[in-house]
Amino acid sequence: MSIKDDVLRIAVITRDASRKAAVLPTPVKEKILRDAAAKLRERRAFLQAENRIDVDAARSNGLSAAMIDRLTLSDKVIDQTAAGMEEIAAFPDPVGEIVHMWNRPNGMKVGRMRIPLGVIGIIYESRPNVTADAASLCLKAGNGVVLRGGSEAINSNLAIVSLFKEALRENGAPEDIVNLIPVTDREAVLHMLSLEEYIDLIIPRGGEDLIRFVAGNSRIPVIKHYKGVCHLYVDRWADLDMAVKLTINAKVQRPGVCNSLETLLVHRDVADRFLPMVAEKLTEEKVELRGCSRSRERVNSMRPATEDDWYAEYLDLILAVKVVDDIDEAIRHIATYGSLHTETIVTKDYDAAQKFLREVNSSSVIVNASTRMSDGYVYGLGAEIGISTTKIHSYGPMGVEDLTTTKFIVLGDGQIRE
Amino acid sequence: MSIKDDVLRIAVITRDASRKAAVLPTPVKEKILRDAAAKLRERRAFLQAENRIDVDAARSNGLSAAMIDRLTLSDKVIDQTAAGMEEIAAFPDPVGEIVHMWNRPNGMKVGRMRIPLGVIGIIYESRPNVTADAASLCLKAGNGVVLRGGSEAINSNLAIVSLFKEALRENGAPEDIVNLIPVTDREAVLHMLSLEEYIDLIIPRGGEDLIRFVAGNSRIPVIKHYKGVCHLYVDRWADLDMAVKLTINAKVQRPGVCNSLETLLVHRDVADRFLPMVAEKLTEEKVELRGCSRSRERVNSMRPATEDDWYAEYLDLILAVKVVDDIDEAIRHIATYGSLHTETIVTKDYDAAQKFLREVNSSSVIVNASTRMSDGYVYGLGAEIGISTTKIHSYGPMGVEDLTTTKFIVLGDGQIRE
Repeated sequence: MSIKDDVLRIAVITRDASRKAAVLPTPVKEKILRDAAAKLRERRAFLQAENRIDVDAARSNGLSAAMIDRLTLSDKVIDQTAAGMEEIAAFPDPVGEIVHMWNRPNGMKVGRMRIPLGVIGIIYESRPNVTADAASLCLKAGNGVVLRGGSEAINSNLAIVSLFKEALRENGAPEDIVNLIPVTDREAVLHMLSLEEYIDLIIPRGGEDLIRFVAGNSRIPVIKHYKGVCHLYVDRWADLDMAVKLTINAKVQRPGVCNSLETLLVHRDVADRFLPMVAEKLTEEKVELRGCSRSRERVNSMRPATEDDWYAEYLDLILAVKVVDDIDEAIRHIATYGSLHTETIVTKDYDAAQKFLREVNSSSVIVNASTRMSDGYVYGLGAEIGISTTKIHSYGPMGVEDLTTTKFIVLGDGQIRE
Repeated sequence: MSIKDDVLRIAVITRDASRKAAVLPTPVKEKILRDAAAKLRERRAFLQAENRIDVDAARSNGLSAAMIDRLTLSDKVIDQTAAGMEEIAAFPDPVGEIVHMWNRPNGMKVGRMRIPLGVIGIIYESRPNVTADAASLCLKAGNGVVLRGGSEAINSNLAIVSLFKEALRENGAPEDIVNLIPVTDREAVLHMLSLEEYIDLIIPRGGEDLIRFVAGNSRIPVIKHYKGVCHLYVDRWADLDMAVKLTINAKVQRPGVCNSLETLLVHRDVADRFLPMVAEKLTEEKVELRGCSRSRERVNSMRPATEDDWYAEYLDLILAVKVVDDIDEAIRHIATYGSLHTETIVTKDYDAAQKFLREVNSSSVIVNASTRMSDGYVYGLGAEIGISTTKIHSYGPMGVEDLTTTKFIVLGDGQIRE
């Protein structure tokens, strides 16, 4: 069987199973998720043996320590993953929710009812726990899922999927609701991306290269974000102590993630006081500062920033710093150099807060909190399936609801078009 | 200047102007729309002179009477278009609406605020009134719009856009919020579809060929529907007089549109009574019937239906008819042959109505009303920008709200990630 046929066959059987997934009763979906979580815990010896094959191969292939860390199914990772699945089981079921219903002058009632998208394709890299998270979220929203993980994690992924399929079967649901494409060639991804008749949405999770490859080759809608160039703007009327605290948290608490801070914008009227304060703390935290000329007048240990620094997603202990004339310049800077991810204003001024909320159209716009708060869990969406910085369908952190759509339902009593 | 440069230039200036469109106050947007409507009415001599150039060219090129009818800006079309714009002006402004806001345990408030998508690309065929409708809906939702109409209507479209630009300028808004690509080569469409950095969403309006061409070549998300194979299922517990009335309306009232009826499904227990009743009326209305073998046992004047008939969108006075064993067979038939557009059940039975509403996942699912009711105006969405049978972003008739997305807004008082 060719790779193309293999991928097509998997998509077709997942599509068929997804029709059943769409009408699974809520308690059955919850039980499948709890059972699959229990299997992860109870069968950890099996999981870890399969995982060891992947980890050993990664070692002999000379993968980095960070990659091997992401690949490893430690006890802690297994317990967290299982707990995450139980949390998803406990969420409200979005399917069948009537979002809104209204009356029409002709006596018809018209409403919108939440339904599954159908089949979701997830394309991801080395973390095998994504297999369990993504399958759980897709099932919760009544979807089928076609998973395509990285070649490094193939044995771990197959093991997790086999446990998930057991839980489906034991609860009388079709095991093909969850499938993994076992072919690890990139060719398999290309075939997958062409199957618009069978897969409704593609969510890539991984580095920018993977995401660009997927977006550049897909015939199916893709929800994605490339990077997070997040800004924090210290307004003229900021509480400067709070501004220091938020800057440090946003930059230092976990610099390698997409909602960490990359550029600090400071109103010129507070630059004299604020910049030395924050620079001292940032330097203590080993953060390298790259400033515009007006920033360097205040803190002359800063290296000069170039145009490239305003676009940079460092994902590291480096911060670009710019003094701006006013909030309008801050908003323009964000519109020009930002990535539509997350921006914070620190201010005590009502008008400035309102203006920032209204005029900055990034996917998360925050007043007086760290950019690191931009996250599905923190927002209360439950587990996060991904984040979108494209405005179609979803914008910002995506939870279970983002794996659904709404259909129109109409309750009539004989209405016709005149 | 090459076609490519020309299209790129238009996209870039529209993008820039869209930033201003996003923050235009509601009353200004309303005034622009009312002023543009007034200009359409008052400057009809100019519009009709430009339109005559297109109509004359169409005549010499031998276009069909139906095409020329769609192309003509009669007094009636101009008045209806202007009235439509005034209606859009009077809609509530979706921009800035806070859809939902909730509290988090850490004291943060998190909400979702409706914002414009950015720049919408509309690709359409011969009706010049689409120019005015689409520009009005896009502006109402705070978007810029790049229009690309058919070559047959180029002079009419340019004339309408020039009046719209006047109304923008006179109200202090950038005239580049609305632009028309004046190049009528298909190459211009291809360039437009590659500009994902500048255009956020493409909506094609026209025949299946145009839509397939757009969907097959776009790097930008496309919202579309190819066709409407709509079903009406007469349940065992239907009011048969109502079922006749709805069948006639759905098939005959305007057979050339996508929400007209194409396949009639009849429960076997009512087939003996219902099929002769409905066949008599349909035959009076000159509808040709193509039936399954069980239908033809009841009405032997029917031609036999082939497999192709179940897939057919006739857009004509032809109807496929099938007798089914039960509601499950009806639902399976719709899932297999349908186009996810609109399906109706006629029933007095509560359980059957609930089952049909829950298990049929077409974009409109109707109980006891004609499939022709599936329409943005009839549903109360206001003017319709299009209809989607793909589930991403929008599903079903699309109104002004579907030209927006939501961003997350967060109101904090110093929250950081621990």
